[in-house]
Amino acid sequence: MQFQLTNQLVEKVEQLIESQNDKELKKVLDEFHYADIAEILDELNLESAVYVIKLLDSETTSDILMELDEDNREKVLKSLSAQEIADEVEELDTDDAADIIAELPEERQREVISRIEDEEHKAEITELLAYADDTAGSLMAKELVKVYETWTVAGCLRRIRGQAKDVTRVHSVYVVDKENKLVGRLSLKDLVVAKNDQKIADIYISNVDYVNVNEDVEEVARLMAKYDLEAIPVVESDDNKVLLGRITIDDIVDVMKEEAERDYQMAAGITSDVEADDSILQLTRARLPWLFLGLVGGVGAFLIMEGFQETFSTYAVLFFFTPLIAAMAGNVGVQSSAIIVQGLANDDVKGSINSRLLKEMLLAALNGVILAMFLFLFVWATKGEMNTAFAISVSLVVVIIVAGLIGTFVPLFLDKRGIDPAIATGPFITTSNDIFGILIYFWIAKMILGI
Amino acid sequence: MQFQLTNQLVEKVEQLIESQNDKELKKVLDEFHYADIAEILDELNLESAVYVIKLLDSETTSDILMELDEDNREKVLKSLSAQEIADEVEELDTDDAADIIAELPEERQREVISRIEDEEHKAEITELLAYADDTAGSLMAKELVKVYETWTVAGCLRRIRGQAKDVTRVHSVYVVDKENKLVGRLSLKDLVVAKNDQKIADIYISNVDYVNVNEDVEEVARLMAKYDLEAIPVVESDDNKVLLGRITIDDIVDVMKEEAERDYQMAAGITSDVEADDSILQLTRARLPWLFLGLVGGVGAFLIMEGFQETFSTYAVLFFFTPLIAAMAGNVGVQSSAIIVQGLANDDVKGSINSRLLKEMLLAALNGVILAMFLFLFVWATKGEMNTAFAISVSLVVVIIVAGLIGTFVPLFLDKRGIDPAIATGPFITTSNDIFGILIYFWIAKMILGI
Repeated sequence: MQFQLTNQLVEKVEQLIESQNDKELKKVLDEFHYADIAEILDELNLESAVYVIKLLDSETTSDILMELDEDNREKVLKSLSAQEIADEVEELDTDDAADIIAELPEERQREVISRIEDEEHKAEITELLAYADDTAGSLMAKELVKVYETWTVAGCLRRIRGQAKDVTRVHSVYVVDKENKLVGRLSLKDLVVAKNDQKIADIYISNVDYVNVNEDVEEVARLMAKYDLEAIPVVESDDNKVLLGRITIDDIVDVMKEEAERDYQMAAGITSDVEADDSILQLTRARLPWLFLGLVGGVGAFLIMEGFQETFSTYAVLFFFTPLIAAMAGNVGVQSSAIIVQGLANDDVKGSINSRLLKEMLLAALNGVILAMFLFLFVWATKGEMNTAFAISVSLVVVIIVAGLIGTFVPLFLDKRGIDPAIATGPFITTSNDIFGILIYFWIAKMILGI
Repeated sequence: MQFQLTNQLVEKVEQLIESQNDKELKKVLDEFHYADIAEILDELNLESAVYVIKLLDSETTSDILMELDEDNREKVLKSLSAQEIADEVEELDTDDAADIIAELPEERQREVISRIEDEEHKAEITELLAYADDTAGSLMAKELVKVYETWTVAGCLRRIRGQAKDVTRVHSVYVVDKENKLVGRLSLKDLVVAKNDQKIADIYISNVDYVNVNEDVEEVARLMAKYDLEAIPVVESDDNKVLLGRITIDDIVDVMKEEAERDYQMAAGITSDVEADDSILQLTRARLPWLFLGLVGGVGAFLIMEGFQETFSTYAVLFFFTPLIAAMAGNVGVQSSAIIVQGLANDDVKGSINSRLLKEMLLAALNGVILAMFLFLFVWATKGEMNTAFAISVSLVVVIIVAGLIGTFVPLFLDKRGIDPAIATGPFITTSNDIFGILIYFWIAKMILGI
């Protein structure tokens, strides 16, 4: 049953578009899920993609639009008239509708909104557009099923039949009081299992999780994952629990994926939001700044080495170990910072910064001593100079400890300051640890060798 | 409404345990969600945690057990008798029950299973234990709501009331034929909205997504995210669609989180499955092998530099740029490999390896030339030797191109061979690129300087 995007299929669709065989084209595409059609359209040129969008009915194409690659969606939207976009938007749930409109230039946003016929839909979308990015409000949909606590089960089922038509999936039925404030929830299962003449007030569960509309989306994701929720209601504020909307798990799954990808890219030194298929210019913009940071670090290392050139004129061998020292400092720093960044994201870094630093110091010391022993034996065996071997090995231990401390401290410090600690991993830590590492290495070697 | 784990709260619970004030302790804990109680228990010592587990009723404690930190759960399970574990397992859904039992030593697994009283539950758990790790079978639960296509809506609702009691959440109602083969699905909403005397055969949706029991969990996660599914039925095979169980989105959310964390740690050079709060020994075991790889790489760099010592005796400045060259090679390699690894995970790396390598080459060349210009100006301005500056800069461009190609090729190659490409990022790429980078750097410099 699994969909396979083949060249054959793409070519077939292209041919049908070219020959304008609309009937056959519709028949072929009708067999696929909208997410699959979006994958096909992502492979076509803009003109062909727009052709398909205009051909199929807006109930399907609105869903296809949501699934297109972001860059392609932008291009397709540019090729559609304000009226055509408004027609698509009419078919979408409020959250998706607001997302599509938010991607348009401001001028065009107003134009599209003014052409939405359904006044309630228009008002709800306008409300959603007002919430700040990355808040619960920006993610929620207005579509939900709610009942008043005074109703009976039979009355409820009757009215739910009416409300449910507009709601793609019913997770929970929210129970509100006469001021529209959230008081509890019911599952459809509870309703189906209850007797017809029972009052809602008698069967609803008052212990209901909710988030307020300004909550950060990452916190919403954490809560929903922790409590295994499939939907969560959104209220105006913790004090005034007026029910405003609901967030469903499929949107949270997308948030989690994006977040994981951003962190991963950040750790690799790629400013977020690029994909393997983006243009070379886009990829350069995302990658070059971090490489430039590395270049500056490398120049720093050069200056340090040059500064020690005289001092170690008879110990040229010391210079040959700088890449090793830099690599170890970088690797240890990345390891420590990754563990801390991940712990912070999962909210399980407990205890004080000091105890955390002490632990990292012990850990780094243990790793450092083990590695230094190998290095000592290698240098001693190949160079026969015990003093030099000793100086290099002791330096390595100190460098590893300092690198571990920097890797631990920087993300904790950034987090305390309210800055995303994920930027600390990758090139940032590697570069600073390279410089500190080489500097410390030469200092210690100088001390030990007594120069 | 949000739960806050405070030291105060933990101390209060500790005191109540010490004074064996069971009534008050129960009252305090009853107010919290089981996931919150698990967070509290994770902070207590083993003895206290076990005390709480034995105090509360098994309906709650079974859920708490599932939410405990894995290391703590292992310890708590060790402290419980086979009978006590069996009592917990009776309360859990089959998927969670099988997960708990799978964590026990083999001998104890048999003991616990033999003490499960509910024969059906026992048989189902035993079935689930037989599926291989990381397959759909290992993740699915046997609990689901199914109806036969020959039933009427009214008959369905009546029987669903019976089945639904055992199912925590009803996502979809699966429709099967008389051989128990999946033929379609119904949402509870459809049932609620339909007329009582309609036949299921007339209202069910035959277009139902499913996975077969041996499907890889990452593929299941990809499908559920792509099609926005909240549950997916699991069948015996694509040919023989006997309905075996279902997988729900909350389990997939956990899989996605674990996967993202594993990839992130792997990229940072940490063998999976450690947390910030693990012991120093565990953390060392996860980190030392990668650091050792870095050490070997550093020794390799040392040997290369030593090899070129004679050649460049009058160009000492070249040696001072080796950390820069190594850092740039490492950074570019990590960037390229991260983009490819992510693209492979998202299934959107299309086209041939050759076109991919060509693109990376152009990208790296562009980045390389820009960076090399800065480096050229710096070396020329500070050292006044245009030849040396030229040699170093040209080397940098070539090193960056090669590093980009290695970073692109290695994960693509591993993926083709069926090996997880994520292991290619981080220390592996950094180390190999360090060595290749320095080697290429000296070769090119030697050629250009005509030595």
